[in-house]
Amino acid sequence: MSDNSFGHLFRVTTWGESHGPAIGCVVDGCPPRIPLSEADIQPFLDRRRPGQSKFTTQRREADQVRILSGVFEGMTTGTPISLFIENTDQRSKDYGDIATRYRPGHADVTYDLKYGHRDYRGGGRSSARETACRVAAGAVARRVLDTLFPHSVLIRAALTRIGDIGIDPAAWNWDEVGRNPLFCPDAGTVPAWETLLGEIRKAGSSIGAVVEVRAEGVLPGLGAPVYGKLDADLAFALMGINGVKGVEIGDGFEVAGLRGEQNADPMRPDPMAPGGIAFDANHAGGVLGGISTGQPVVARFAIKPTSSILTEVASVDRARNAVAVATRGRHDPCVGIRAVPVAEAMMACVLADHALRHRGQIGAF
Amino acid sequence: MSDNSFGHLFRVTTWGESHGPAIGCVVDGCPPRIPLSEADIQPFLDRRRPGQSKFTTQRREADQVRILSGVFEGMTTGTPISLFIENTDQRSKDYGDIATRYRPGHADVTYDLKYGHRDYRGGGRSSARETACRVAAGAVARRVLDTLFPHSVLIRAALTRIGDIGIDPAAWNWDEVGRNPLFCPDAGTVPAWETLLGEIRKAGSSIGAVVEVRAEGVLPGLGAPVYGKLDADLAFALMGINGVKGVEIGDGFEVAGLRGEQNADPMRPDPMAPGGIAFDANHAGGVLGGISTGQPVVARFAIKPTSSILTEVASVDRARNAVAVATRGRHDPCVGIRAVPVAEAMMACVLADHALRHRGQIGAF
Amino acid sequence: MSDNSFGHLFRVTTWGESHGPAIGCVVDGCPPRIPLSEADIQPFLDRRRPGQSKFTTQRREADQVRILSGVFEGMTTGTPISLFIENTDQRSKDYGDIATRYRPGHADVTYDLKYGHRDYRGGGRSSARETACRVAAGAVARRVLDTLFPHSVLIRAALTRIGDIGIDPAAWNWDEVGRNPLFCPDAGTVPAWETLLGEIRKAGSSIGAVVEVRAEGVLPGLGAPVYGKLDADLAFALMGINGVKGVEIGDGFEVAGLRGEQNADPMRPDPMAPGGIAFDANHAGGVLGGISTGQPVVARFAIKPTSSILTEVASVDRARNAVAVATRGRHDPCVGIRAVPVAEAMMACVLADHALRHRGQIGAF
Amino acid sequence: MSDNSFGHLFRVTTWGESHGPAIGCVVDGCPPRIPLSEADIQPFLDRRRPGQSKFTTQRREADQVRILSGVFEGMTTGTPISLFIENTDQRSKDYGDIATRYRPGHADVTYDLKYGHRDYRGGGRSSARETACRVAAGAVARRVLDTLFPHSVLIRAALTRIGDIGIDPAAWNWDEVGRNPLFCPDAGTVPAWETLLGEIRKAGSSIGAVVEVRAEGVLPGLGAPVYGKLDADLAFALMGINGVKGVEIGDGFEVAGLRGEQNADPMRPDPMAPGGIAFDANHAGGVLGGISTGQPVVARFAIKPTSSILTEVASVDRARNAVAVATRGRHDPCVGIRAVPVAEAMMACVLADHALRHRGQIGAF
Repeated sequence: MSDNSFGHLFRVTTWGESHGPAIGCVVDGCPPRIPLSEADIQPFLDRRRPGQSKFTTQRREADQVRILSGVFEGMTTGTPISLFIENTDQRSKDYGDIATRYRPGHADVTYDLKYGHRDYRGGGRSSARETACRVAAGAVARRVLDTLFPHSVLIRAALTRIGDIGIDPAAWNWDEVGRNPLFCPDAGTVPAWETLLGEIRKAGSSIGAVVEVRAEGVLPGLGAPVYGKLDADLAFALMGINGVKGVEIGDGFEVAGLRGEQNADPMRPDPMAPGGIAFDANHAGGVLGGISTGQPVVARFAIKPTSSILTEVASVDRARNAVAVATRGRHDPCVGIRAVPVAEAMMACVLADHALRHRGQIGAF
Repeated sequence: MSDNSFGHLFRVTTWGESHGPAIGCVVDGCPPRIPLSEADIQPFLDRRRPGQSKFTTQRREADQVRILSGVFEGMTTGTPISLFIENTDQRSKDYGDIATRYRPGHADVTYDLKYGHRDYRGGGRSSARETACRVAAGAVARRVLDTLFPHSVLIRAALTRIGDIGIDPAAWNWDEVGRNPLFCPDAGTVPAWETLLGEIRKAGSSIGAVVEVRAEGVLPGLGAPVYGKLDADLAFALMGINGVKGVEIGDGFEVAGLRGEQNADPMRPDPMAPGGIAFDANHAGGVLGGISTGQPVVARFAIKPTSSILTEVASVDRARNAVAVATRGRHDPCVGIRAVPVAEAMMACVLADHALRHRGQIGAF
Repeated sequence: MSDNSFGHLFRVTTWGESHGPAIGCVVDGCPPRIPLSEADIQPFLDRRRPGQSKFTTQRREADQVRILSGVFEGMTTGTPISLFIENTDQRSKDYGDIATRYRPGHADVTYDLKYGHRDYRGGGRSSARETACRVAAGAVARRVLDTLFPHSVLIRAALTRIGDIGIDPAAWNWDEVGRNPLFCPDAGTVPAWETLLGEIRKAGSSIGAVVEVRAEGVLPGLGAPVYGKLDADLAFALMGINGVKGVEIGDGFEVAGLRGEQNADPMRPDPMAPGGIAFDANHAGGVLGGISTGQPVVARFAIKPTSSILTEVASVDRARNAVAVATRGRHDPCVGIRAVPVAEAMMACVLADHALRHRGQIGAF
Repeated sequence: MSDNSFGHLFRVTTWGESHGPAIGCVVDGCPPRIPLSEADIQPFLDRRRPGQSKFTTQRREADQVRILSGVFEGMTTGTPISLFIENTDQRSKDYGDIATRYRPGHADVTYDLKYGHRDYRGGGRSSARETACRVAAGAVARRVLDTLFPHSVLIRAALTRIGDIGIDPAAWNWDEVGRNPLFCPDAGTVPAWETLLGEIRKAGSSIGAVVEVRAEGVLPGLGAPVYGKLDADLAFALMGINGVKGVEIGDGFEVAGLRGEQNADPMRPDPMAPGGIAFDANHAGGVLGGISTGQPVVARFAIKPTSSILTEVASVDRARNAVAVATRGRHDPCVGIRAVPVAEAMMACVLADHALRHRGQIGAF
């Protein structure tokens, strides 16, 4: 058991605080002889990096990753891969007043209640900065999936809602996601989001969002009943992203309103489909009984507005005096934006783990 | 790693198939010297037992639990507790035709794709019958919580929606839950649900539902960042219940539409509150940064309509011929109903596990 | 983490006390489609069963195993295998006086110090009776190895020393092991052992022993540095057998006296050997750097004389009064004898686990 | 599961190769509010550091440890502690010829057989250099023990045999261990060992050794039957040290020759003793039934002569040609020497893990 590790056969352990000297992770269980270099990881970190638009925190981090072990002559060796990212922009004065006052909606208070001592600089361990490690590990996971699966698994995420403004699903275009800084798959929605976020930022407020993540090319058989289900592991992985309060697989909460006939995904023989079976719908989101069907694995999650806002909210300090707290400093008005690459990384890690777990089966791919 | 175990310090391993001779579980990590007998467990199994109303499957199981180990002279010994439930009503002829044909929306196809061999009788391991073991383990978890916490933790669940009919939250009455066979907390909604379910049953169809589960009296400090978060573990536990497609903590998907000021839960000093801090709202559902705040822990999940329906749906058989499948036999028109005691059990197990994990901390309760 | 489970991918959880209604185990992670029935398991239990000669305890247990789950139509399904053995001969009066007095050298005192409550009947959980579950699980592990390895792995153990009387290694004959009730591989030593044991039994005393266990046909590559080493896992498994105080791999403690040239196992090319390499010695006991070499895996362990003796030894009772304790009842004068089938079982379980762990590797067997 | 992690609640994950840029480890599960700085760790690394006498490898490493996370304002925070040690003396030319030729008795061949690709520089991951991480983690474990136990646990190890020359147990003096570079507890034996090692070194040979490690002040109750036994976990930890081939607890292999009366450790009431019980002997080595008794925990292990010798031994290369291999470069003639601080570290880690595991028990210290 380790509170800072996830995955079983593809196992990631992260460490580091927002304003310590560095953050990093150890990826254990990566198979040997997979080509890997920093160049395979850096682009994903660059996508998550803050300061790339006015809608994300202005903290400037190079987020330069170094591989310290587990790779030799350009290939993984099967030994643990240590990934290392220096913290370069820790203006710790920004955060000084939160040492003693708890920000409502933030983990300040619970860390103190649990541990009685915390690194309060920039949120310490509870900072979203930790997710850089997940993104780095996710890049390694993608290389594992590329190796194990005949056709690469395609893992992509997008922002589908900010506040009350959802995208038009009919206008979904994956190419669009990379063209705007909001990871929006619907070009028509971008201007409305920019207007909303501009207003939010000016007001010193923040706003919630919804992210959708999909994996195509996943072979059937991944996931293991009854406590190693693929969808349960995804729920764990996505609910564990900072600020997430809801997770859906496939039709998600919509299924509550459906009848059996509406929810069934009809099947037909298809020699070209994985397992020889094609599906005519995907209400299930690619998972039945906790095992992948071969259809796209589809998940969605809601992320709350960041608790760092300029409006004062009633709170307490460590000595249990009543105080009012407003948060100064650099923050994301919508943390959902930077959660998009994190969502992809978590999907990649969960799939790599389950691919390795399934691989041991007799007759598996 | 074990695909059929969950929890870390309070660890449950379940075994058994729907139509085998028995099902059961091993609870490891239960502390010693906790009074425990079958009488502490049986009432919870009775609540989940099928055949108690016309709205659940007509399979008749005594679901009589036996404790085979780990308890001596009425008290736990700290050694593994083996719980054993015989299967007494396995009319296996009911299920004969699903040996070769996959029911759409069911785990038949994925078990076959993964394992190449499955116990098809009554769904085998994928049957909701396995959840009886969770309920039994949950009863043990409640005894652990009773022992660890000064005032008992109160864990209760209710059905809040069937199909398109939600309850009136303002009419919520926990006492009502035990008075109707649908675990409905709002007496006014019961007739409408009965009418709907009667219609569904006559049509040989099925319908989705939403369950809410709450734990009161949870002390602050349970849950461990960043990959042992209380809410992530709950998401794992609830998403792993048969048929669940979405999980929410606190405000859940609603947070996507909120601003920071709306989502913040204001705090004020209160010497009588856990940790000396009272909250004036609970958008967070009792968890911040993955750690309990001392407020009620609130979770919700959506459960799909069972895939066993009388309407024929296009499918394939093991030989990859096109077939049309309708399911005869005994089924729940709304599996959400019997998921209510299961939800409570999973909440109890997760909390007991985290209570034990936290207990090791210096200065913990 | 589970104190009553061992193995990772082939994972065994045992439960039960000496004088409870039954004992059993759950084997999780056994691959699907392996032929398995009670008949594959029972012979191994019969070998370990007490009461087969005058040199083992006179307790009479049928040790009849039942498979309650995980097998369908004669083949494993990939779901957990529940193995169940009723306790039929629990004359608990034999053990009444140990409820309050601690037997020196026995776990009575430490169980009480740790748990404050224990099932003292027949030693409860600390009884060697629990090892029947290991033997049952080991039989399943053998079936896994038979399936994974091209030529069956041959796992055999023998008693090589009782008290001061060791066997003549030059006279080692595996066939002999099955012909005498002492699992002795050297026919010439049997009479001396029988004389010694007769004398020990008459004196109400007990005696220590050494067991050697070997696995032939193990392919190279099993075991994973640096904390999943095959030899370290074997050391854990064997040291965990009741009464074991020392474990050796290959030359064991002899290596302390060797020089590098004496200890090196020379290699030469051999296309017929596993990995294309033949070894001209096996000081290493088949493991280098924690990974199997393809040579026989050789381990040895020392087991102490059982603490149940008729001679009075100074002790204390639960109330911390000085008492003198002698043990009446049915006991093994040399528990090492019945440890022989247990040793084989532990070797089989460790190898099956590592075979499954290695199998996930790209390019593995 | 993680092949490069050990421990459960006090969990250490190590990474790094002999000639990579750095090595390190992540310690997860260290309780919060324990004073910790580099100064608590460095002295133990200094003891293990090579190049301190002519009897250890002449590689010169500063082995300067840095704490990168998990400590704030001089105290642990409960978050993962990342320890980082740069590699500064990697003269990789020394090792060039082992890229293609397997050194007999070394892990070269098994790493290649398992992974098909390895970092051969200096042994890569199989190098004893990795044990520096264990020593660093062990220093943190000591701080945990200091905090949990009323009187500090005293963990000490010594070399008790080199080749055929054992120490005189009657002359054992712990103070002496720190006065000579061979960690010898018997001043009278040092000259004979120096002569022997001088001869070995001149001959380009190597020699085996025995190390004993003891922990005093361990409270009763540590260790958990039946697969979390303290002695089994110690056996795992010590057998996993590079080159170890045998492990003993208490009397070890001597018990095979004992009768029950000789092996029993008599007990008597003693209000000052842990648990109110004093023992008049310690054949058991402080562990009964896998649980600590309160007596000193005593373990011993044999370590083989390093396989790096100047004498040519028959071997094969990667292409399966016959070759003869002699090892040039810097090596320890007796790796047992530097295993002494490693033994203490492993003991500390195992005890800290079990102390935390036990601490959760109701009524525990």
